[in-house]
Amino acid sequence: MSKLPNISTSIFTVMSKMAAEYNAINLSQGFPNFPVDERLTDIVAKLAKENVHQYTPMSGYPLLLSKIALLIQNSYQRTIQPETELLVTAGATQAIFTTITALVKSNDEVIILDPSYDCYEAPVLLCNANPVRVALNDDYTPNWEIIEKACTVKTKMIIINNPHNPTGKILTESDFEALEILLEKHPDIVLLSDEVYEYITFEEKHISAHTREKLLNRCVMVSSFGKSFHVTGWKIGYLVAPEYLIKEIKKVHQFLVFSVNSICQVAINEYLEIVSVSEIGKLYQEKRDYFRQLLKGSRFKLMPCEGTYFQVVSYANISNENDVDFCKRLIIEHGVAAIPISTFYADGKDLKLIRFCFAKDNATLEEAAKRLCAI
Amino acid sequence: MSKLPNISTSIFTVMSKMAAEYNAINLSQGFPNFPVDERLTDIVAKLAKENVHQYTPMSGYPLLLSKIALLIQNSYQRTIQPETELLVTAGATQAIFTTITALVKSNDEVIILDPSYDCYEAPVLLCNANPVRVALNDDYTPNWEIIEKACTVKTKMIIINNPHNPTGKILTESDFEALEILLEKHPDIVLLSDEVYEYITFEEKHISAHTREKLLNRCVMVSSFGKSFHVTGWKIGYLVAPEYLIKEIKKVHQFLVFSVNSICQVAINEYLEIVSVSEIGKLYQEKRDYFRQLLKGSRFKLMPCEGTYFQVVSYANISNENDVDFCKRLIIEHGVAAIPISTFYADGKDLKLIRFCFAKDNATLEEAAKRLCAI
Ligand SMILES: CSCCC(=O)C(=O)O
Ligand SMILES: CSCCC(=O)C(=O)O
Repeated sequence: MSKLPNISTSIFTVMSKMAAEYNAINLSQGFPNFPVDERLTDIVAKLAKENVHQYTPMSGYPLLLSKIALLIQNSYQRTIQPETELLVTAGATQAIFTTITALVKSNDEVIILDPSYDCYEAPVLLCNANPVRVALNDDYTPNWEIIEKACTVKTKMIIINNPHNPTGKILTESDFEALEILLEKHPDIVLLSDEVYEYITFEEKHISAHTREKLLNRCVMVSSFGKSFHVTGWKIGYLVAPEYLIKEIKKVHQFLVFSVNSICQVAINEYLEIVSVSEIGKLYQEKRDYFRQLLKGSRFKLMPCEGTYFQVVSYANISNENDVDFCKRLIIEHGVAAIPISTFYADGKDLKLIRFCFAKDNATLEEAAKRLCAI
Repeated sequence: MSKLPNISTSIFTVMSKMAAEYNAINLSQGFPNFPVDERLTDIVAKLAKENVHQYTPMSGYPLLLSKIALLIQNSYQRTIQPETELLVTAGATQAIFTTITALVKSNDEVIILDPSYDCYEAPVLLCNANPVRVALNDDYTPNWEIIEKACTVKTKMIIINNPHNPTGKILTESDFEALEILLEKHPDIVLLSDEVYEYITFEEKHISAHTREKLLNRCVMVSSFGKSFHVTGWKIGYLVAPEYLIKEIKKVHQFLVFSVNSICQVAINEYLEIVSVSEIGKLYQEKRDYFRQLLKGSRFKLMPCEGTYFQVVSYANISNENDVDFCKRLIIEHGVAAIPISTFYADGKDLKLIRFCFAKDNATLEEAAKRLCAI
């Protein structure tokens, strides 16, 4: 008997594979198709010939840890201790899996908002714990009252994703105030904040959970250099957490992966000296605006997008099919791959919404839009 | 309360850190200090400027999967299906953790031989399962009778490590025959075979568990390019398993790490076209012979070494201290770091043995030996 009987191949793998089979433009899985910054690839080319090929220390390459602390200082004016409050991980997915595995016990409950990115539930199930799904409001804001009602003595963790994949929604100051009031009543709940798109936000300002006075002592914040620096294949992420939590997370980390790819860690350390993270939001804001502009001529209805590199659209005007079938037909008949939003819902709720990734060069966005406008 | 109350920082981290503090020659943690093959670093430098920076598919870079199947064909004359019997992992540690997490359930028992490398027990504990330690014979051969006696209806897995870290012991044909007879009586036990040093063997021929007719249908074999190609920092390993097992392992893998560092996967794929794995054993056999030769003038007693890049020695002639204290004094007073063998035993059994890593350039081995001969 499988330990994960209800889990099959992730939708991102399914759709990327199908896109390749049908030679469709792949706007499904989230990854950029434009060239990586030459300054970063120059660093890698140079480092290849240096002494960067053996194990880094378990918590991460020490210079990178300091550099991440500096990045956090500059971005959020928060001072953290690189030695005791940071861990470099093999991507955000490994950070999330490791955090849940280290902190969640049998029969604990973990609150996961609905819709959600698909990697939170499996580690909870593998801990013999119970995912408790709480629906977001129709506009994808969290309903803190319902979340509070879902909290029990068994609740060990609440997982938030900010900016939110797939909807691009960003938590506001008043969201955080409500969350803080809620958590004050539940001193044992840990907040796991998936912020892999922290630097991909537009008009609204991103508030990072670990910078909140009232949260920082119980918050594990996860970020991703893959997303921030357009190198999703590198699988380098990190997490920020208070020492008493990170101690437990490191215990698992050292036997789960021990350490993380050395040459890419060293490369990111050097790149952080010359790159400005404020470039990232600007780049993607232009892409979002361009893609939305291009889709104006289509029959798709554009939903708001405050962050991430995903644009959700409704095809309710176009078809009555369920969103998985619609996405398949979109690939086969129209040569564009997207992600059906129903796959982000625990119960597969079909709202006739699909997600496009706009982290693509302009030619790709133009050709995709041409195909989409012809529908 | 910690989920791993008895686990602290691994001995490899402790000793490497102490070696750095005291500026000692670090023969503790297993990693090479000589330059990586220029052909491999040339490949990395070239690839840096190519399109190799986004997610590879979840199971691994497809060309690398095929190349690994070819390597297995050439090394062992066994044909495997790259799509369904192979998984690329973020190092062997992640392969082992993922396999145990996917296959072992609450209250299962997992047989771990004693002494053992330190990464097997934590994932078993995190599954709420029970590690059952079975002592190796005094010459580090497995005692199959005692192992068989330890098998119960709850036994889900037996973990072997071949060649064995720290003792360098290799399983023989008759070991495998005994294991096969044992497993025939227990059709539900999975064999997890940690073979990260499969290409680092000397006089004795390495027998890979997954090539045995009677084992291949229930065996997960784990290997490591980090060890084979002197790039321990890259964290690229793989596992070979039958489809019904790998299906479960991939379910966990996709939510544990999703995919593995892309540029290093592509680099290894290209390197496998030009490198011969038979070079690896030869290189380390010379190093072993040279290091043993150098230590002849010391008061340490050399134990046999059939594989791995570790040499175990007895210091019983030199001191009565326990091995952890002796290792600390070795660093502080003599400037050489080693690993105390007691840390490989569940009960910390102290046999006055320590382990040196000889994966070092000759100058390092010479200077270390000079210091060791002066004791
Ligand atoms: C790990 S594959 C999925 C990438 C991603 O973050 C997304 O497409 O939502
Ligand atoms: C992952 S650190 C330990 C490296 C190693 O395999 C060893 O020293 O035994």
